[in-house]
Amino acid sequence: MEPKGFDPLGVPESNASTYPEPYRPLNQRRWNRRLGNHAGLTNFGVNLTRIAPGGQSSCRHWHTRQDEFVYVLSGDVVLETDAGEQVLRPGMCAGFPAGSPDGHRFVNRGSGDVLLLVVGDRTAGDEVDYPDIDMRGRMGPDGRYQFTRKDGSPF
Amino acid sequence: MEPKGFDPLGVPESNASTYPEPYRPLNQRRWNRRLGNHAGLTNFGVNLTRIAPGGQSSCRHWHTRQDEFVYVLSGDVVLETDAGEQVLRPGMCAGFPAGSPDGHRFVNRGSGDVLLLVVGDRTAGDEVDYPDIDMRGRMGPDGRYQFTRKDGSPF
Repeated sequence: MEPKGFDPLGVPESNASTYPEPYRPLNQRRWNRRLGNHAGLTNFGVNLTRIAPGGQSSCRHWHTRQDEFVYVLSGDVVLETDAGEQVLRPGMCAGFPAGSPDGHRFVNRGSGDVLLLVVGDRTAGDEVDYPDIDMRGRMGPDGRYQFTRKDGSPF
Repeated sequence: MEPKGFDPLGVPESNASTYPEPYRPLNQRRWNRRLGNHAGLTNFGVNLTRIAPGGQSSCRHWHTRQDEFVYVLSGDVVLETDAGEQVLRPGMCAGFPAGSPDGHRFVNRGSGDVLLLVVGDRTAGDEVDYPDIDMRGRMGPDGRYQFTRKDGSPF
C-alpha cells in the first residue's frame, strides 16, 4: 500500500487550454498541476496553478452551477471582479459561489511566478459566462466544455 | 460591491465537534475556520484547520461518497493510513477518494501548531467509517451526521 501524501511539485504541469482562438494564447502563460486527479478524486478538482509574469488564470468568468475557491500560496496576485482590482498576498483566499454573476480572474503583474491552489466542483449542467469577451462555455455530458460565441455560433 | 479576497485568519475559529462522548475530547485540540461557508460556497467545504500540539484532525475515517483533499500550509504533520505513518511537510498534500476504505487522520506530534487547508464535497447519502473505534456516521437529509455504534445503537 502506497503512502497517500505527495509533493505537488512532482506532478507534471501543463499549459494546455481548451479556449478557442483568439483567446487561447492569453491563457497559456499559466500552468496547471492536477492534484485532485493525481490523487484519484472525481467529485471536485484541485489544481496547483502557476501563473508566469504577465499571465492570467483564465479570462474573467463565472459559473452557473459550480463553486470555486482559490488560496494564494506564493506571489502577489491581482484579483479582478466587478468590484475592481484587489491585490491578494500569500495566505489570502477568495471564493466564488455558483450562480453569482460576478466574473473573476487572477492576473500576475509581478516579476516572479504566482502559485495558487484552485478548487472547483464538477456539478453537471454547468455553464460559464465571460463578461468581457464574446464567448460562453457549456459543459457537455462528458464533462468537457464547448465554447461558442454568446449567440451560440461556433468559433 | 465588496472585494472577494479575504484573510482566512480573520474568520472566527471553533473547536466544536459533533463527535459523541467518549470521542469528542480527542477532537477538540483542533480548530476550524470555515472559509468556504464564509465565501458563500455550498457545493463543497473548505476549512483552515489548526491542530494544536497533541491534537488530531479527526479520528481515522473514510467516506463512502465524498472526496477529501488536504494541503499542508505550515508545520510537519503525521498522516496515518493503512499504509502506516507518513510525515507531511509544508507544501505537501494528500487526497482521499470517496469509497476507498482506507481510514486517514492527521496528528500533530510537534511542539507548534499545524495549519492545513482541508476540502471536502457535500454529496448526499454519505456514510463515514471509523476503522479504529466502535463508531460510524450517517449523513441525514439536513446534511448533518448522526453517529452511532457500528451495530447502529446510539451512544
